[in-house]
Amino acid sequence: MTTATKTTDFQSWSHGHLLRVEEALQRMLPAAEIAPQRLHQAMRYAVLGGGKRVRPLLAVAAGELADADPERALIAGSAVELIHAYSLVHDDLPCMDDDVLRRGKPTCHVEYDEPTALLVGDALQSLAFQLLGEYRLSDDAKSQLEMVKLLAAASGSRGMAGGQAIDLESVGKTLSVPELEFMHIHKTGAIIRAAALLGARCGRLEPQALGQLDQFAKFIGLAFQVVDDFLDAESSTATLGKTAGKDANANKPTYVSAIGVARSRELAGELHMRALDALASFGERALRLRQLAQFIVLRKF
Amino acid sequence: MTTATKTTDFQSWSHGHLLRVEEALQRMLPAAEIAPQRLHQAMRYAVLGGGKRVRPLLAVAAGELADADPERALIAGSAVELIHAYSLVHDDLPCMDDDVLRRGKPTCHVEYDEPTALLVGDALQSLAFQLLGEYRLSDDAKSQLEMVKLLAAASGSRGMAGGQAIDLESVGKTLSVPELEFMHIHKTGAIIRAAALLGARCGRLEPQALGQLDQFAKFIGLAFQVVDDFLDAESSTATLGKTAGKDANANKPTYVSAIGVARSRELAGELHMRALDALASFGERALRLRQLAQFIVLRKF
Repeated sequence: MTTATKTTDFQSWSHGHLLRVEEALQRMLPAAEIAPQRLHQAMRYAVLGGGKRVRPLLAVAAGELADADPERALIAGSAVELIHAYSLVHDDLPCMDDDVLRRGKPTCHVEYDEPTALLVGDALQSLAFQLLGEYRLSDDAKSQLEMVKLLAAASGSRGMAGGQAIDLESVGKTLSVPELEFMHIHKTGAIIRAAALLGARCGRLEPQALGQLDQFAKFIGLAFQVVDDFLDAESSTATLGKTAGKDANANKPTYVSAIGVARSRELAGELHMRALDALASFGERALRLRQLAQFIVLRKF
Repeated sequence: MTTATKTTDFQSWSHGHLLRVEEALQRMLPAAEIAPQRLHQAMRYAVLGGGKRVRPLLAVAAGELADADPERALIAGSAVELIHAYSLVHDDLPCMDDDVLRRGKPTCHVEYDEPTALLVGDALQSLAFQLLGEYRLSDDAKSQLEMVKLLAAASGSRGMAGGQAIDLESVGKTLSVPELEFMHIHKTGAIIRAAALLGARCGRLEPQALGQLDQFAKFIGLAFQVVDDFLDAESSTATLGKTAGKDANANKPTYVSAIGVARSRELAGELHMRALDALASFGERALRLRQLAQFIVLRKF
């Protein structure tokens, strides 16, 4: 295949799977007509109709690598996306980042109200774990319990919520690159790794291969954040669909504040290469993961 | 046994298990020295050193009924208690009940700060599911996945978080007793039922017996809330360890505002009787559950 056909091919793969992700999320969220209606409407508002869906696509691609039933990987990826969506709703609250725009729409607490947004986040987290308990995602129930543990650990105080706490503590401080890495490995990286590992656990992958996939996800998760940082500094609010330049305004340490835009772009490229190196032994089987990595690094929003 | 010896016996049973619950929670919460320290300190502050621990005791008593390994029922009960603790932290936030006192101490956001309290609640919810994924709680991993689903459903938008949303919507309204029941079956009842069912699922109980236990938990959960309502109206802040009279101040519909204190006391008695009826077929095996029910109905705080 030429590069051009591969790219077209990726576009059709990702487009198809994006539709399936949206459909799965639609189906798994409680209907807006079910009581309490306002809460369910707000949950649907927060999750549906927006988002790059990088995490579910990673889960699906990792599932393909591990010969998983595609439907299972899709559900596992949707659970991870619900965790991600809840974190955005809580991060946008006035006591956190106090943001009014997300995915080109008013944030959840602006469209609804603050207590509803708080409950939306809480209930989305519960729903994520409900999916992992409810659907059969692995032939081995013990392995599925591992998935519960993995997603919970990635979400909690030693994962995403912990990264958020470190973020709060570092406002106004200058962080070194290793300190930034530590923060982002928790805040963004943990859930991205969980997405890849959960997708793979829907199928079968030897421990060593799981380790390589985890390495890939770790580097691509960091690259994702580095790219986020320079996009925040260089793009417009219209392009991003969320408030641009807010890191600098909030006096938050970022890769851009630590090493500048040019070096951040280089760093994203280096992390991209290290991520690809981790996939070397998989050969063509990791094609979708490589393409996703490229999408993450080259994205404009 | 005379009533007096049974009572003493219950006191020693519950005292022993309360110590075990505290010890288990101590052990399962991340150490305060682990980064991010402030978040871990605040999580420990919110969970440890207070609380009646009704839910873990229910799990342990239901576990005894189902011949469960006591350690397993204790861990399942601790997971439910973490969900309860997270809900208190979020309920106390300024955008919700805006309360400053809980279990005789400043609430989490007063002692720490609002964003930390938000993350404490988020991370405690994750930790609850981490325990259910991490520890072996049932001989049958599929049954343990059912526990994950059960706790998640009880916590989410059609359980506790949903009840909280209904509560928000009903401020300033007059609710009928059936409407109050609907709200409390979600807000308080779902997690109390989950505590009993999770404890039982650590052992073995036939579906019919599980159904009876669920009935018991449903009635005792409602009784718990009715008692809460008249204690809020009649007790002092010092006795309760939380702000007394806050329902009336917040213009919240309660059993007291709907039917008065005297009728609320009668209703608690009726629900207590219906709860005991549901246990009839268990005979002496349900002694601890009966004693717990009595404790819940006769408590002063």
